[in-house]
Amino acid sequence: MIDEDQRHMAHALSLGRRGMGKCWPNPSVGCVIVKDGRIVGRGVTAPGGRPHAEPQALAMAGPLAKGAMAYVTLEPCSHYGKTPPCCDALIEAGVARVVAALADSDPRVSGQGFERLRQNGVEVTTGILAQEAMHDLAGFFLKVEQGRPWVTLKLAMSLDGRIATATGESQWITGPAARRAVHALRNSHDAVMVGGGTARADNPALTVRDMGAVQQPVRVVVSRRLDMPLMSNLAQTAKEVPVWLCHGPDLRPETRDAWTGLGAKLFPCHLSQGRVDPHSVLQALGQAGLTRVFCEGGGQLAASLLVADLVDELQVFSAGMALGAEGQPGLGALGVDRLADAPRFELVDVTVDGRDVRHVWRRNAAI
Amino acid sequence: MIDEDQRHMAHALSLGRRGMGKCWPNPSVGCVIVKDGRIVGRGVTAPGGRPHAEPQALAMAGPLAKGAMAYVTLEPCSHYGKTPPCCDALIEAGVARVVAALADSDPRVSGQGFERLRQNGVEVTTGILAQEAMHDLAGFFLKVEQGRPWVTLKLAMSLDGRIATATGESQWITGPAARRAVHALRNSHDAVMVGGGTARADNPALTVRDMGAVQQPVRVVVSRRLDMPLMSNLAQTAKEVPVWLCHGPDLRPETRDAWTGLGAKLFPCHLSQGRVDPHSVLQALGQAGLTRVFCEGGGQLAASLLVADLVDELQVFSAGMALGAEGQPGLGALGVDRLADAPRFELVDVTVDGRDVRHVWRRNAAI
Repeated sequence: MIDEDQRHMAHALSLGRRGMGKCWPNPSVGCVIVKDGRIVGRGVTAPGGRPHAEPQALAMAGPLAKGAMAYVTLEPCSHYGKTPPCCDALIEAGVARVVAALADSDPRVSGQGFERLRQNGVEVTTGILAQEAMHDLAGFFLKVEQGRPWVTLKLAMSLDGRIATATGESQWITGPAARRAVHALRNSHDAVMVGGGTARADNPALTVRDMGAVQQPVRVVVSRRLDMPLMSNLAQTAKEVPVWLCHGPDLRPETRDAWTGLGAKLFPCHLSQGRVDPHSVLQALGQAGLTRVFCEGGGQLAASLLVADLVDELQVFSAGMALGAEGQPGLGALGVDRLADAPRFELVDVTVDGRDVRHVWRRNAAI
Repeated sequence: MIDEDQRHMAHALSLGRRGMGKCWPNPSVGCVIVKDGRIVGRGVTAPGGRPHAEPQALAMAGPLAKGAMAYVTLEPCSHYGKTPPCCDALIEAGVARVVAALADSDPRVSGQGFERLRQNGVEVTTGILAQEAMHDLAGFFLKVEQGRPWVTLKLAMSLDGRIATATGESQWITGPAARRAVHALRNSHDAVMVGGGTARADNPALTVRDMGAVQQPVRVVVSRRLDMPLMSNLAQTAKEVPVWLCHGPDLRPETRDAWTGLGAKLFPCHLSQGRVDPHSVLQALGQAGLTRVFCEGGGQLAASLLVADLVDELQVFSAGMALGAEGQPGLGALGVDRLADAPRFELVDVTVDGRDVRHVWRRNAAI
């Protein structure tokens, strides 16, 4: 029975992954309904967060849900929010057994969903593929428990850790396959974040392209004074795809009004050591509902996140090219004098993307 | 038949690899003798280069060599050198067919070995697994054709391309498995080479440890003025394991005498732009018989080899640690202003060594 459970849960997790980056502030949950060994319903949290996965899967199953098993990656909700509780929907449909990977840590749900199901005669099994689910839903848990989103940091560098020549040429160090992989990563995050220096130097669009994206990630720029050109790609498209600006407390009113007028949303943040404080930035983004943020540099912002121990995952692309010590470093100064003090990460994956290597590291490989 | 041929040649190549780093100035050749589908003899060029692979394999086969097939990774020699020609040994043993991966490019042999075999009624097939053999024997071919050894450059760095903290702490960035892999790499090269700065800073032994090495690689230091401590590990063990010093033309006589007295061998080299010229170094090492050199830095020597387009393979170890822009770079300045001018490499292998990632790149993946 365990193998069956794992197989269906793996299916539910893969459904859940499809919604990543599209349903914040909600977690992207997957649900599979199985009747007599046959899959009769599937669902994933819809773009925007509603409807949840369970009612969609139940609707697909119809009367076949009676006596069926429902596999969900997260504890079904038990409270009346903007939708009626999923627990009630499962009970009403006559589901015989609910298998969940994880309990919800939202205090309005935690354990109460399972309890309600059991009280209504539904068998409940938990903890199936819990570790995989823990990783997939880590952004949601971080937001609930620490108030901040999951942070994935991208570093696309030459073999010797450089992101541009001394003269600033950076397009392209990695090849087309790696750049496509970056777009897929943007697509699985709620927001793409860069520092003001990168926004100025690269004039990026930060959108997901050529992926059939149903929802673009929020574009976040961290810049104390928001001294980026108002004719930039970001500024000029802020009404189409959200631009959120995390700035210092000393913003000039004219700057604020200009960006607001262009459609950007402004988030005043604290400073620390003269820079926008990364804790303050992530708390603001978490408060605004983001669960997964993809940081694409530059070196200063990346360094400030690392120093603050706010990087959960590193996606490192190494290109087969050397740029030498005069090239621009992928990371700014960290103030690390001793190896024992260096931020450390555990390897979780290595892939070959076209001509480049991608290595993925997590602060904690168990998550 | 082709599949059989490839299988036996792969066996011969694997034998040849065992001799790498141990039989310079000769190539490490593998030989397998097959009679009626059964392996009756195996040989690899012996430490020091003699005896060659073929007579060893023939000796093992004994009378079974008559009518057998001999698989050799390189054209059998046809000239009287320090040993009688292997062609004659194969002919005398009555081998019916010789299968070779590659022709020798040594002008004393090239094609004449095959010719001599054919004239004596031996069937000859060539080109089986030629590309694999080309890589394994590339150092020998480079020495014959360009006068210089193959150069493998190791870079063991943090995720952001640093080899030490700002204060110089570098032990250890990579883990035990990666460090063991480095010893295996030393063991498969004729020599290990570092710059004078690394010799001073790290006081390395540069020996192969815990590998059951039958022959230690030559230790090469490139340093204009040889201003390394005479009490260093290298200096004090120069009589046990060779130390070769590539220095500039302006060496002080006392320094020369001190190192010679310690047992080191000195190679005066040209300068270019105030540094020991890497072309001059490699020509001297090739002249002295080396076919495969493993460079372990530092950043300046590595950069000078890259700028001179003398790096054939890069063995890059990436550790899950960030050291920041103030850390010491793995490569010195390359003078690359435009991406189009950057030294480029093609990915040939990726492995996980314990907690670190190793990515292997070659200037030309076809070799």
